Amino acid sequence: MKKKDEKNTDLLPINRLFRSLSQSIRKVDNQIKKNIQDEEKLITLAASHLINAEGKKLRPVLTLLFSRLLKYRGKAQYNLAVCIEFIHNATLLHDDVIDGGKLRRGKKSANLIWGNKISVLVGDYLLSKAFKLMVADKSIKVLQILSETSLILARGQIQDVNNLYKIDLSEKKYLSIINSKTAELFRVSCYLPSIISDQPKNIQKSLNSFGYHFGMAFQLSDDILDYFGKSKKLGKMIGKDFYEGKVTYPIIHAYRNTSSLNKKRLKKFFLKKKRSKKDFIDTLSIMESCNTHIESIKFLNKYLKKAKTAVLKFEGSRDKVYLDALVEYLHIRDK
Amino acid sequence: MKKKDEKNTDLLPINRLFRSLSQSIRKVDNQIKKNIQDEEKLITLAASHLINAEGKKLRPVLTLLFSRLLKYRGKAQYNLAVCIEFIHNATLLHDDVIDGGKLRRGKKSANLIWGNKISVLVGDYLLSKAFKLMVADKSIKVLQILSETSLILARGQIQDVNNLYKIDLSEKKYLSIINSKTAELFRVSCYLPSIISDQPKNIQKSLNSFGYHFGMAFQLSDDILDYFGKSKKLGKMIGKDFYEGKVTYPIIHAYRNTSSLNKKRLKKFFLKKKRSKKDFIDTLSIMESCNTHIESIKFLNKYLKKAKTAVLKFEGSRDKVYLDALVEYLHIRDK
Repeated sequence: MKKKDEKNTDLLPINRLFRSLSQSIRKVDNQIKKNIQDEEKLITLAASHLINAEGKKLRPVLTLLFSRLLKYRGKAQYNLAVCIEFIHNATLLHDDVIDGGKLRRGKKSANLIWGNKISVLVGDYLLSKAFKLMVADKSIKVLQILSETSLILARGQIQDVNNLYKIDLSEKKYLSIINSKTAELFRVSCYLPSIISDQPKNIQKSLNSFGYHFGMAFQLSDDILDYFGKSKKLGKMIGKDFYEGKVTYPIIHAYRNTSSLNKKRLKKFFLKKKRSKKDFIDTLSIMESCNTHIESIKFLNKYLKKAKTAVLKFEGSRDKVYLDALVEYLHIRDK
Repeated sequence: MKKKDEKNTDLLPINRLFRSLSQSIRKVDNQIKKNIQDEEKLITLAASHLINAEGKKLRPVLTLLFSRLLKYRGKAQYNLAVCIEFIHNATLLHDDVIDGGKLRRGKKSANLIWGNKISVLVGDYLLSKAFKLMVADKSIKVLQILSETSLILARGQIQDVNNLYKIDLSEKKYLSIINSKTAELFRVSCYLPSIISDQPKNIQKSLNSFGYHFGMAFQLSDDILDYFGKSKKLGKMIGKDFYEGKVTYPIIHAYRNTSSLNKKRLKKFFLKKKRSKKDFIDTLSIMESCNTHIESIKFLNKYLKKAKTAVLKFEGSRDKVYLDALVEYLHIRDK
């Protein structure tokens, strides 16, 4: 018999979603495994280290969920889900090189084990493999969208690096960066099922809007958790953005809403080469005084609300419940 | 009036080739410039730093030359040449991160100026842009070939890193690595013009064979020059492979042909974390005693001869003279 706790977890709508898609997810997992088998064993090893780590695979799940919602029965959805996960993992590998990140999904990051060299090249391998898989499906439209997405992701990551330490980063620029580096891939994960299943424009638009707003909310939520989350639950260190000098929503909010004395202090922190633990604690207390946590969640919720609104037309469908569950998942993890 | 030296240089067949293609090369250059213009100025800056450096752009030149040889009049050749140059430059950027290379084409390498972060990401940007450009031409066949090539390049670079310090690397494995990391892109640079111009199989085969053998010769030549070339002429430091612990043809030759005492010394050098200048000089003297320079050139010449043979059927065409000039160029730069 199951323990009471397990039962309760099973009942969470997000887990029911994963269970309801388990067959399709398994298909995607198998295709991922198959496609990282290479004559060069190191490639298989490094790629599977990352991909087998217990990530939620949210992007492929969105692709599978929308495909089912639209009653698409073809095989292109699996291929698409694999491509999207490969593109995502390629950016993770390159992101780890970039940020010197030490924990990724609770495991040692690939660059700590094999070095920067292999991380970069296995990322290249996954990106190339994604393109190869896309080409196999011979859909020029999908290729157009995903090659543009891949370009936007690279631009977003470059902007992310190029705006480190800029305490006066505008909210507008910040939103544009997280759109490129994160929301874009969520957007196409949701939007592409409407392309492969030839949906009318209004359906395409709904999925596009859900994906964009959900993706924005996802990054906002991550950025909020980096200040207010619990390290163990996240599988990565808290305060990472702060120590790296990355300017995210909570900092932008606090900097805009605090006294000019505190502004100067925040500015000083971000001009330093290294920020100390004390700097972080001081920053948290400035945030406390500005109500940054609650205000950030309010800001996040605007995106979640728009995501929900975008798919209102699917009311009545079983899968609409799961879309709501995904939105709810981002909402509660920030509480 | 031109000086005598300049005149003599003008008369070199390889320079006449570049001159005869100058209009097409300019078109490619313009498309390159256009395609690295980005709203994020850092991308334009970092990408043009690399691409404007005075590289010979051999790969795009091969694409243009074979297109002309086959009397192809379409525009796809320019796009193709740009894609190939972008893919090549993406690997250079990632290679610089990997090897900690300091000089690239006689200039400071990008990672020294902007750091590893930006080098990796601008590489990703160029690779994504290459795919986007390819997709624009809507040729599934070209996409299939180039996405496979991109995968093979990544694999080759991974194998390159994974076989550092292995003094007992077999000639067979070495050849397989240089095929993946270098010859493959040369091969498709030559082969693809036969695809876009719908040539019969025997023509496709000739171009494929020329590209493969020329590409192998190109890397062999590079590897030989790394021991026996002149630093200034190369635009990069001599002995770079040795200091990095990269096992290339000259080392494989010397290790196979020297006394067991010298074998032990070479082995010791490649087991060290860092190889000294004295180690390099000792290695050169071991190579001297095995006739490694001459034997390596003989080995290289086998590939050059096969490249020439592959295009014998074009005898009589003006462009055949230029193909011979390219082969001759690899031959003489190693003397």
